[in-house]
Amino acid sequence: MPEAVVLLSGGLDSITALALAQEQGFDCYALSLDYGQRHTAELAAAQRLADAAGVREHKVIQLGLGDVGGSALTDNAIDVPDHATSGIPVTYVPARNTVFLSLALGWAEVLGAWDLFIGVNAVDYSGYPDCRPEFIAAFERLANLATRGGVEGGKFTVHAPLINLSKADIIREGIRLGIDYANTVSCYSADSDGRGCGVCDACRLRAEGFRGAGIPDPTRYAR
Amino acid sequence: MPEAVVLLSGGLDSITALALAQEQGFDCYALSLDYGQRHTAELAAAQRLADAAGVREHKVIQLGLGDVGGSALTDNAIDVPDHATSGIPVTYVPARNTVFLSLALGWAEVLGAWDLFIGVNAVDYSGYPDCRPEFIAAFERLANLATRGGVEGGKFTVHAPLINLSKADIIREGIRLGIDYANTVSCYSADSDGRGCGVCDACRLRAEGFRGAGIPDPTRYAR
Repeated sequence: MPEAVVLLSGGLDSITALALAQEQGFDCYALSLDYGQRHTAELAAAQRLADAAGVREHKVIQLGLGDVGGSALTDNAIDVPDHATSGIPVTYVPARNTVFLSLALGWAEVLGAWDLFIGVNAVDYSGYPDCRPEFIAAFERLANLATRGGVEGGKFTVHAPLINLSKADIIREGIRLGIDYANTVSCYSADSDGRGCGVCDACRLRAEGFRGAGIPDPTRYAR
Repeated sequence: MPEAVVLLSGGLDSITALALAQEQGFDCYALSLDYGQRHTAELAAAQRLADAAGVREHKVIQLGLGDVGGSALTDNAIDVPDHATSGIPVTYVPARNTVFLSLALGWAEVLGAWDLFIGVNAVDYSGYPDCRPEFIAAFERLANLATRGGVEGGKFTVHAPLINLSKADIIREGIRLGIDYANTVSCYSADSDGRGCGVCDACRLRAEGFRGAGIPDPTRYAR
């Protein structure tokens, strides 16, 4: 079986991307980042999801993005909005997916794997620049210039299997693949028990997805 | 003054890149990574160099690359070669410059800076893929797709002012700019006092550079 490194946040999208990678026949290595995010409950969720999915290995890398700040997710002085905002929201973490994919690429090189999976979505999303198809294509190109494997003639592929799906479609795919979404945490302000706030962008997109898919929403809310 | 984020390792090249950025009129923010490298003495060197250069701020971000391994620099079970080897050497850290530039990019976005400096060199170097001009160009392109600033019409520039210089030329430039290279640590196996091994690739390239430049070598060796 070919091996793949899958970025696993603990949210709804990334575990669906992982399940799709497994369906495609990849032996999956899951990578999570402990980057100073306020919603650390997602890391406990990632561990539960990785265990349930039977990944080959789940690695959590420490990364001090809290020292950089500049986002509501990494700086407690910036509030997570409780309503939709225009433009790219303050929950955008500068260069986050570039950093995360770079780390996945490094691990893939060590493993000898050629495939990366990331659960970005450019339909029902918050407008983050690093979730768009042109970003994924540019990263793949970079990956093949940046690495020993690329220079020696190999070819890394960055898979973003959810990129053109609606949130409802993603949930339908996940249910088909047997994912228990009760194990996932999407909320930017999740409490330590993983319960959502119900009002942030992530909660809103998630709830709309379950409604759109006509599937009972297992999300637990703090209020 | 425009602001720039400069990757500062503590070695000879990166401080020269920083001095060139300052000469070009940039107000510099220095970024170092505590990534599990065996030669942690370079971080103390980076702090001395940042202080001496009078940077606006010097940040050290923690990053657990030791958990990924795959390089003589991040895995103590892999020895640093004491002689030249063919091909890309085992001191190559998978995707390191991609990760480091991504972090510099994130900090630049938070600062509102548009310029990144990295002291890579593709002449007297160890053949690392992520030190080549095509890598730098691809990263710059990615940066402008990955970020809020890029999407909103700004333009990030990745400067690699040493990329086509010989090591001797780099040293001549640094001396012209007043750098005290006694403060730098290049050795992959530097001891806790920053003294070099004298036999690794980094020590060899450095020593040849001083000889080529006809400048007394201030490097301290452990043996």
